[in-house]
Amino acid sequence: MGGDFGVSVSVPAVRRALFLCPDLRIFLTGGSAISDALRKSRLSGDPRVTVVEADSEIESDSDPIDDLKNSAGTSMRAAVELVKSGKAGACVSGGNTGALVAISRYLLRTLSGVEHPALVTCIPSLGNSSGRSVMLDLGANLHSSERDLVEYARFGSLYAHHILKISEPNVKILNVGTEFSKGRKEIRAAAEELSSDSSVRFTGFMEGSELFSSDADVIVTDGFSGNIALKTAEGFARTLFKSHSGRSPIAKLMSLPLKWLLGRRLRIFSPDRYNGAALLGLSGIVVKSHGAAGVEAFANSILAARDLVRSGIMPALIKSTAEPSN
Amino acid sequence: MGGDFGVSVSVPAVRRALFLCPDLRIFLTGGSAISDALRKSRLSGDPRVTVVEADSEIESDSDPIDDLKNSAGTSMRAAVELVKSGKAGACVSGGNTGALVAISRYLLRTLSGVEHPALVTCIPSLGNSSGRSVMLDLGANLHSSERDLVEYARFGSLYAHHILKISEPNVKILNVGTEFSKGRKEIRAAAEELSSDSSVRFTGFMEGSELFSSDADVIVTDGFSGNIALKTAEGFARTLFKSHSGRSPIAKLMSLPLKWLLGRRLRIFSPDRYNGAALLGLSGIVVKSHGAAGVEAFANSILAARDLVRSGIMPALIKSTAEPSN
Repeated sequence: MGGDFGVSVSVPAVRRALFLCPDLRIFLTGGSAISDALRKSRLSGDPRVTVVEADSEIESDSDPIDDLKNSAGTSMRAAVELVKSGKAGACVSGGNTGALVAISRYLLRTLSGVEHPALVTCIPSLGNSSGRSVMLDLGANLHSSERDLVEYARFGSLYAHHILKISEPNVKILNVGTEFSKGRKEIRAAAEELSSDSSVRFTGFMEGSELFSSDADVIVTDGFSGNIALKTAEGFARTLFKSHSGRSPIAKLMSLPLKWLLGRRLRIFSPDRYNGAALLGLSGIVVKSHGAAGVEAFANSILAARDLVRSGIMPALIKSTAEPSN
Repeated sequence: MGGDFGVSVSVPAVRRALFLCPDLRIFLTGGSAISDALRKSRLSGDPRVTVVEADSEIESDSDPIDDLKNSAGTSMRAAVELVKSGKAGACVSGGNTGALVAISRYLLRTLSGVEHPALVTCIPSLGNSSGRSVMLDLGANLHSSERDLVEYARFGSLYAHHILKISEPNVKILNVGTEFSKGRKEIRAAAEELSSDSSVRFTGFMEGSELFSSDADVIVTDGFSGNIALKTAEGFARTLFKSHSGRSPIAKLMSLPLKWLLGRRLRIFSPDRYNGAALLGLSGIVVKSHGAAGVEAFANSILAARDLVRSGIMPALIKSTAEPSN
């Protein structure tokens, strides 16, 4: 039910995901709008799709703490409960991020020793051989302590290892400078701790300017700055695409091939391609889709959830949090 | 002496600034390299240029507190001392930002009631009529309290008023969402205080995606996120420009007009055009140039310093900090 477009995106996205991975089984949680949307997408009666009725929904602009208190009977809570009961391998939601984090933490519990689960996704990178960097946290936590940042580095390494199949992922922390004296105290402390952590290949700081071109396989950041950085790049691309070259007919004509070529190039960096951020640090898999995702982007987040289930990252996370590092 | 290129950029930039504004008078502080550079730029003997000898320099990767302790005799300190003594109207530096903030705070002192001076500059915007947004803080402070953010909003409004000549500037705070429930506690508290502050026209939150397209005349952010956001946009533009469309000769040929047109469009967003961030909240004017600035960009920061001196913003800042708001 979540996201900016509700079932008009999520149900066609389910159809697309089932087309690409015919062996998926999908639960849809929510109200009567689902049955109508299933009919329109010619999915009624498909044995791979099960509807789980839920009366109400979480609002997009509400407070996460209130959401948690009033979450009984909501479609979001019903989806996370399916993961808790073991009926579903993962939950995908396009709804309110704060509420999803709060409900998932409450129902699924954090793994042993984990204080703050983190949202992680892959962004395109031109600087390393896989063409992608794992980035976290993307907004599960607005503040990150030294301990959180160290944990993100470990989670990110496991993600890069299990999802991108990189044997010794190179980890960097996003900062306002690359020298060790630069940045917030908790960042400098995390860097020092990671330098002597044998489970992580930490290679230093990076600046915002290298976000899409560094050799880092894993980019560690607090959720606030991470959210602002990714959204800035997204908005900049859109602004660049829309900005006028001039008002004369010649300038307008010349801007046509630019728009076409720029559109092709920007597609590499489209957030739709890396939609689906995993919430790591819980006893189950939860994936957050961008609220404004279209059908293809939402389908990508369903496929991301499937990849996470199959990757073996959950047993690795449980093992890594159970035994102390160093 | 500062910045990535030292006198090989700063001295030709002085020449350019003097060409554009023949009535400027400029002090250059530093070692013997200056005289050589002046000769090369055919500025030796120019009565508008005065060299003030300084034996040493601040390193680019040192700790600001150590820098302050050991700053006696450095070119950076000599430049700020010229402002303190009233010989110069403003100081421009391309050196270590942390050291410049520490030395300026120590010598020039903050204005009455100001805790944390902020770095402010104009960025391009396609969303408002002036085509520019005033953005602060850009890295003077790595953490910002509620009180800091409210102060930034007031400083930014004065800057927009005196430099961009906007009568009632529209102020927004950069956040991870636009709803009032979103974001860090200090941001929500600052928003509440600004909503009842008659000296500022506060219109709510904005996200990173709107950085270059919102209608905000003033964008308020903590220095850490602000630095990361601007550098991300800068790096993204560069990455986009460099990324390959493909390897075939046709793709390469097709990418030529794209590069040309993209280069033209990116020029609007080039950080060189808005180089020169003012440190506001002190009893004198200090301007920070980007360390990687070329001649034109560095000259722009000299012109920005001149505009600040002539704008009448200093008396306005002194008046605004002397009398309590609301």
